[in-house]
Amino acid sequence: MKFQADRTTLIRALAHIQSVAEKRNTIPILANVMLSIEGNLLRLTATDMEIAVVEEVAAEGSRDGAVTAPASVLYEIVRKLPDGSVVELDHGGGDAPLALRAGRYATSLNVLPVEDFPSMVAGELPHGFSIPAPVLRGLVDRTRFAISTEETRYYLNGIYVHVAKDGDLPMLRAVATDGHRLARVETDLPAGASDIPGVIIPRKTVAELRKLLDEGAGAVEVGLSDTRIQFRVGAVMLTSKLIDGTFPEYERVIPKNNDRFLRVNKQAFADAVARVAAISQERSRPVKLAVQPNLLTLSAISPDQGMAKEELDETSVSYDGPSLEIGFQARYLNDITDQIDVEAEFVFADSAAPTLVRDTNAPSALYVLMPMRV
Amino acid sequence: MKFQADRTTLIRALAHIQSVAEKRNTIPILANVMLSIEGNLLRLTATDMEIAVVEEVAAEGSRDGAVTAPASVLYEIVRKLPDGSVVELDHGGGDAPLALRAGRYATSLNVLPVEDFPSMVAGELPHGFSIPAPVLRGLVDRTRFAISTEETRYYLNGIYVHVAKDGDLPMLRAVATDGHRLARVETDLPAGASDIPGVIIPRKTVAELRKLLDEGAGAVEVGLSDTRIQFRVGAVMLTSKLIDGTFPEYERVIPKNNDRFLRVNKQAFADAVARVAAISQERSRPVKLAVQPNLLTLSAISPDQGMAKEELDETSVSYDGPSLEIGFQARYLNDITDQIDVEAEFVFADSAAPTLVRDTNAPSALYVLMPMRV
Repeated sequence: MKFQADRTTLIRALAHIQSVAEKRNTIPILANVMLSIEGNLLRLTATDMEIAVVEEVAAEGSRDGAVTAPASVLYEIVRKLPDGSVVELDHGGGDAPLALRAGRYATSLNVLPVEDFPSMVAGELPHGFSIPAPVLRGLVDRTRFAISTEETRYYLNGIYVHVAKDGDLPMLRAVATDGHRLARVETDLPAGASDIPGVIIPRKTVAELRKLLDEGAGAVEVGLSDTRIQFRVGAVMLTSKLIDGTFPEYERVIPKNNDRFLRVNKQAFADAVARVAAISQERSRPVKLAVQPNLLTLSAISPDQGMAKEELDETSVSYDGPSLEIGFQARYLNDITDQIDVEAEFVFADSAAPTLVRDTNAPSALYVLMPMRV
Repeated sequence: MKFQADRTTLIRALAHIQSVAEKRNTIPILANVMLSIEGNLLRLTATDMEIAVVEEVAAEGSRDGAVTAPASVLYEIVRKLPDGSVVELDHGGGDAPLALRAGRYATSLNVLPVEDFPSMVAGELPHGFSIPAPVLRGLVDRTRFAISTEETRYYLNGIYVHVAKDGDLPMLRAVATDGHRLARVETDLPAGASDIPGVIIPRKTVAELRKLLDEGAGAVEVGLSDTRIQFRVGAVMLTSKLIDGTFPEYERVIPKNNDRFLRVNKQAFADAVARVAAISQERSRPVKLAVQPNLLTLSAISPDQGMAKEELDETSVSYDGPSLEIGFQARYLNDITDQIDVEAEFVFADSAAPTLVRDTNAPSALYVLMPMRV
């Protein structure tokens, strides 16, 4: 195997895929990236056996072949080469080290046999649809913060994507929850997605996908079976196993009869939450919201440090319901306001009941927050 | 005690001093900052009983007095207030909490009695001199990286500052070493410094001082006794205990007869070291320098990953001595090149002997590196 590639091309591809390869893996070859060249097409592959990422880029091939070498070392080396470098990779076959040359720099990397590199087969993907990258990014960003990290509730360790009816209209919906908060976002159903099964996309897959979506403005091709999902973003193909579990019936958690509407400027609210919460270093202490007509008072208490409060008046708040006091974790409030454009709408029932939060500019997103005792 | 101050003034002063107050201290009051107002002069003080920092800034006082409150919480709160805020601090005395108000934000901070706040007395400082901030910054930056972190060799846990003769001329000299490398820098002896005792300035003091020097371009006033040092940088006074120990006779470590001179472009060398070292994640593995006339070959080996090498030729290297191979820790090489301007000069004896390094643009700085077996 022998080819030359621009440093810029190589570093971009390695950045996409090197985080899938796990450095400290008990199976050494999973720390490697597979490089294979066929004519002038270079294919880079990394996998942790749950996820595989394949990227195809242009290179100047002079001898077809494939090799596997340590992904993170290769990434670090290429990253440190001078901008504009042309990198030559040359592998004689078998156990011979992979030679990398760029100018007067040369390295020999230990390789592992290509035959041992696990191939992740997507299998048949009976469902397929296309979705604009910015739309997919919206679904991911507005839900991923609520993904549970509790390993025992493995069925909550991802984003649940499925088709759901909003009135009569079927929509593509993404939901995540950790039991303390829930995020639900939907978008028009893409053509070809009407029969997809409900699937739970694992957290690591979500993170890798999100990284790829940073660059793309085009369409993402999604393929799907009951057990696998595949995303094609530009020249990158991300294939992942799905979480084998049943997502809870989340609709029952979403309150239907809340009727006290508070509207608040997102930035004023987020800043006030941060300032009030600064009184306590304990991240789980609640911020209390005392709601009165056109007046919102945020407060927090720390037994050690003291207390803090801030008032938001009619310049940033609108409310005309009965007075109400309710507490939430500051971090949970900020996770939601991070996703809100200009104005947040809180819909309360009472101090002890789940609260709805919406973005008044994005009715397709809906958040549920469980209150804390204050 | 009651006063108003600009957020900008307050945040700047708190940033200077809050890192001296230790959050998780067994003596709770040491986590506090003392605020005292006299007329329109606000004095902020923090101490860990080894170091004290006092800053005086302008405020609009309306009732003289003093109070102590949690430094990091106060810092976080003031940091999160909107730019341009006017902050009012009001303390009724005794156990009453400290009230902070800014616009519609208000906080009550728990206080501890001013009488319990330890005052650090500098005592008599018989020696005093003035040194330009950029010169002091140079002494600190070119030595601090070599300060030992080994607690048992406490006398190496700081920078040794003393008067030494360079030829016939007495100079002010700063030295630090951890046994693996040594950094020695000198500058013209400031007026009034000729009789100062040799003192060891502790690492934390060096770090706090360095932070203050970031801003100042003026002169720093230094006061000194056998046990205390005091720096006045602008409106800030930093007082510190000195390390009570004897700095080793470092001159014996500095080789006198090395006679093989290698000159190398600093940037080309530093980049090559980083690239070659990237082959190994073990930070302590050596980089080997193979020196030949006008050719320097850097190389590193990792049993797991492979090997890397890079050649620097006469475009960046000049050498006309006999061939030589010698190894150093990559990190130690980069710590030194970080302080070098354009060109580094290595002066070798042989593969096993301490090596001298100089900056060809700054003859007042000198570094010694112990080689590693390669």
